[in-house]
Amino acid sequence: MNDFFLENIKNEEVIIIQRDVIRTLIVETSSKPGNFAKVATAIGLAGGDIGDITTIKDGILSTVRDISVFCESSDQLEDVIKNVRALGPDVIIHAITDDVLKAHEGGKIRMKSRIDVRSLGDLQRIYTPGVASVCLDIQSDPDKARYFTSIGNSVAIVTDGTAILGLGNIGPVAGMPVMEGKAVLFDQFVGISGIPILLDTSDPDKVVETIKHIHQGFGAILLEDIGSPHCFEIEERLKEELNIPVMHDDQHGTAVVALASVLSACRATGVDPEKAVIGQVGLGAAGLAICRMLMAYGVEEVYGSDLQQEALDRLKSYGGQTLQSLEELMATCDIVVATTGVSGLIKPEMIRPGQIILALSNPNPEIIPEDALAAGAAFAADGRLVNNALGFPGIFRGALNAGVSEITYPMLVAAARALANHTKPGELIPNPLDPTVHQVVTRAVELAAQQK
Amino acid sequence: MNDFFLENIKNEEVIIIQRDVIRTLIVETSSKPGNFAKVATAIGLAGGDIGDITTIKDGILSTVRDISVFCESSDQLEDVIKNVRALGPDVIIHAITDDVLKAHEGGKIRMKSRIDVRSLGDLQRIYTPGVASVCLDIQSDPDKARYFTSIGNSVAIVTDGTAILGLGNIGPVAGMPVMEGKAVLFDQFVGISGIPILLDTSDPDKVVETIKHIHQGFGAILLEDIGSPHCFEIEERLKEELNIPVMHDDQHGTAVVALASVLSACRATGVDPEKAVIGQVGLGAAGLAICRMLMAYGVEEVYGSDLQQEALDRLKSYGGQTLQSLEELMATCDIVVATTGVSGLIKPEMIRPGQIILALSNPNPEIIPEDALAAGAAFAADGRLVNNALGFPGIFRGALNAGVSEITYPMLVAAARALANHTKPGELIPNPLDPTVHQVVTRAVELAAQQK
Repeated sequence: MNDFFLENIKNEEVIIIQRDVIRTLIVETSSKPGNFAKVATAIGLAGGDIGDITTIKDGILSTVRDISVFCESSDQLEDVIKNVRALGPDVIIHAITDDVLKAHEGGKIRMKSRIDVRSLGDLQRIYTPGVASVCLDIQSDPDKARYFTSIGNSVAIVTDGTAILGLGNIGPVAGMPVMEGKAVLFDQFVGISGIPILLDTSDPDKVVETIKHIHQGFGAILLEDIGSPHCFEIEERLKEELNIPVMHDDQHGTAVVALASVLSACRATGVDPEKAVIGQVGLGAAGLAICRMLMAYGVEEVYGSDLQQEALDRLKSYGGQTLQSLEELMATCDIVVATTGVSGLIKPEMIRPGQIILALSNPNPEIIPEDALAAGAAFAADGRLVNNALGFPGIFRGALNAGVSEITYPMLVAAARALANHTKPGELIPNPLDPTVHQVVTRAVELAAQQK
Repeated sequence: MNDFFLENIKNEEVIIIQRDVIRTLIVETSSKPGNFAKVATAIGLAGGDIGDITTIKDGILSTVRDISVFCESSDQLEDVIKNVRALGPDVIIHAITDDVLKAHEGGKIRMKSRIDVRSLGDLQRIYTPGVASVCLDIQSDPDKARYFTSIGNSVAIVTDGTAILGLGNIGPVAGMPVMEGKAVLFDQFVGISGIPILLDTSDPDKVVETIKHIHQGFGAILLEDIGSPHCFEIEERLKEELNIPVMHDDQHGTAVVALASVLSACRATGVDPEKAVIGQVGLGAAGLAICRMLMAYGVEEVYGSDLQQEALDRLKSYGGQTLQSLEELMATCDIVVATTGVSGLIKPEMIRPGQIILALSNPNPEIIPEDALAAGAAFAADGRLVNNALGFPGIFRGALNAGVSEITYPMLVAAARALANHTKPGELIPNPLDPTVHQVVTRAVELAAQQK
C-alpha cells in the first residue's frame, strides 16, 4: 500500500504543488495536421505541463487555441515560449495571459443580497418601515438575531498580515487574496458568509480590543496568518473574553489535518497511535498545536523539539514533554511529524527502521518520502496534500450549527477522526473538493459539540 | 401641479407609510361564487388593505389562498381577523404568517464567491499556491489591491446602534436588520459589497480607534444610525484620519435627498433657491447637515433654529446663522424645512402665504401638507417619500469609481441636483426603484469628483 501511496503522491505532485507559474498562451497554428503536436512537443521539451486547451477559432487556414501551461519557474516559462517561437512562421503566439491574476480580478467575493427588491412592497418589507418590527423583535429577545440576521452564519476572517502563507510579514492588504480565498471556500463548501477583517496592528492589546468592539456582528472568529508568538496570546485572550467560537486556523485547523494524516498513516501500517511514541519537530504555531492535538487525542507519549527555548517552554506550559535535540527525538519516537520549514533537515541516517515519517513543510519537506523509505521508514509522506481547506469549513459550520460558544478539543479531534475515516485506502487524507468531506466534518463537530 | 402632487402623495400614502403591520392570511373558502368577495369585504371593512393574493389550492370543494394584508396597527389586524372569522364555517383562516419576518429569516445578505471552484486547477488558482503570486504583486505595488481584491468595491456599514431608525438606542445587534437592508440596496442598486460592522462602543475615541484598525479592508466607510452629538466628532475625526471616503448617511445622505426635495419644490413654484431665505427647524444630525448642504449649494440666507443652545452653537461653528425661535423662523423664511420629530409642531397660523413647507419628520410630520396648503402655503410636502435609499448607493458608487479619498460638498450637491433633475414633474423626488436613478447619481458624483 505504501508503494501505491507514494505513486499516488508522485502523480499528484506535478499537478498540485511545484508548478505555480500558470499562464495561458493564445497560439495560432496554420491548419496542417501535426502542427499542434509540434507546439505540444515544444512546450513539453522545455519542461512545461499542458492543462486545459480551448479552441478559440477553427478556421480553414488556421486554428487559434488557448493553451494553459504550468511551469516550475518564470525561467522555465521563458524556455517554453522560446521553444514555441522557434517552430517558425506556422506557429504564432498572440498573447500570454495570466490566469491566476485573471481569477482574482475585481476580488473573489462580494456581499450579495439574498432577496430581490422588485417592488415598493419588497422595499417596505426588507427596509423601512417593515424592518422596524424585526429590530424591535430582536431588541426584546436578542436570541432572535440568530434567526433574523446573518450574524449566526457569518465568520470574521481576521488577519494582521504578519504570516501570510509562507511569505511572512507582507501586511494585511497584500494578504487579502488569501482571506478572500478562505471566504470563497467557506461559501462554496459550507455556505458560511466569510468576512475578511484586515488589522493594521499586531499588538495583542489592540487586536483583542478591536475584535471585541466588532465581534457582535459575527457568529465566530477565524484568526488567519497571524505570526508567532503573538498569535498565542491573541487567540487565548479572545477565547476567554468572547462568547463566540474563536480559532486560529494556522494552529488548530492545521493540527486537525495533521492528526488526520497521523491516523491514516497508523492505519496503513497497523500502528496504534495512542500507544505509539510520537515526536513533533518544530514548535511554531502549527507544531505546538499538533502536539496539543495529539495529547488531546490520547497519545500517551508526545515529545516536542525546537531550537528555541521559548518554544520548548511554551509546550511545557501546556503540559507537554520536550526533548533536547532532533537526534534524540529521531532515536526515541515511532512516529515523527516535522513542520520546521527547513528543507532536508532530517538526514537518512537518522531514520530508524519501521518509523513513520510525516515531513510536512511546504514546498520542500524535511526529508523526501522516497529517501525516508529507502532509509528504512515503514511509511513516509510530505505535506503537499495536507491542505487546511479540509478542516476549517466543516469545523466552523459544525460549531455554528451547534450554537456553541467555543471550539473545544473534543470537537477538533472529532473532525480529525472524521477526516481519517473518510480517507480512501492508499491516500493520506481526502480530496478537499470531495463534495461530502465537509459535510462529514460538519456532522462530526456538531455531534461532539452536543455531547459536551 | 400642486394638486396633482398632493393627490399623488395621498395615493402613495396608503401603500408606503402608515401600514407597517404586514401579515399573510392563509384562507380557505368553500367554492361558491362570491365567497372570496365576502372575505375581501370583511378585510376592507376593518380597515385592512389587501396586497398580493396567491391561489395555493383550487379544488372542487374549496379554494385556499395566501392573502397579504396591510394594517395600521396590531389592533386593526385583530379586527380584520375577527371580521373574517365572523363569516362563518364557509371561510377558514388556516394561518397568519408574518411576511416581514419571513423576508428577514436567515439574514438578508451573504458573502458569496464570484468564482466556482470546480477542479484542483481552480483551487490552485484562487487559493494556494497560485494566490501567492497575487499577494506578492500587491506587496510590491499596493495600488494593485484595487484590481485584485474586493477592497475597492467594499463599503463598511458601521453602526453603534444608538439611533436605529426612529427607534433610538436599541443596540447594534437589534439594528442589524437595517444594516443588512442597506447592504441589500448597495448590492442591488450599484453592485457594492456592503459589510455591516456592529460596534459595542459609542465612545468617539474607541470608535475612531476601532475603525482605523480595520479600515484597510474597505474602500469607504458608511456611518449609519449613530446618535447625536457623538456622530459629529466620530465622522470628522475619521474623515481627517483616514484616506478613504467616510460619510454619515443620517447627516449627509439625508441632506442630499432633502436638498433635492427643496430644488423640486422650488421648480414647482418658480422660486429661485439661491435667492430664497430658507429656514431649518431642528438641528439634530439631519437638520444640521441640511443647513450645511443648503449653504454649500449656494443659498445666501439659511437660518437654523433649535431648542438646544448646543445645537445652535454647532451650526454657528460651521458658519451658519441662527434664529432664536420657531415663530421668528416661520416669520422670516420663504422656505421652511423641518426635521424635529415633533408631530404637529408647526401650527397653521404660523404659515405665511406663499411659503414652501417641507415637514419631513416620519411618520408624523410637523404639519400635514393639506393643513399647510389650507393655511396659505404655496407648496407643502411631508417626508414620506424622502427616502435615504435614493442617495447613498450612487454617492458611494461614484466616489469608489472616481477613486477619491473623500466625499466633498461638490459631490453631494451634484448628487442632489441629479436627483432633482431626474424627478418627474408633479413628484417631489424619484422612485428609489427607478432602475436609472442610481446610475444618474453615480455619474454626477463621479464627474464632480473628477472636477476637483
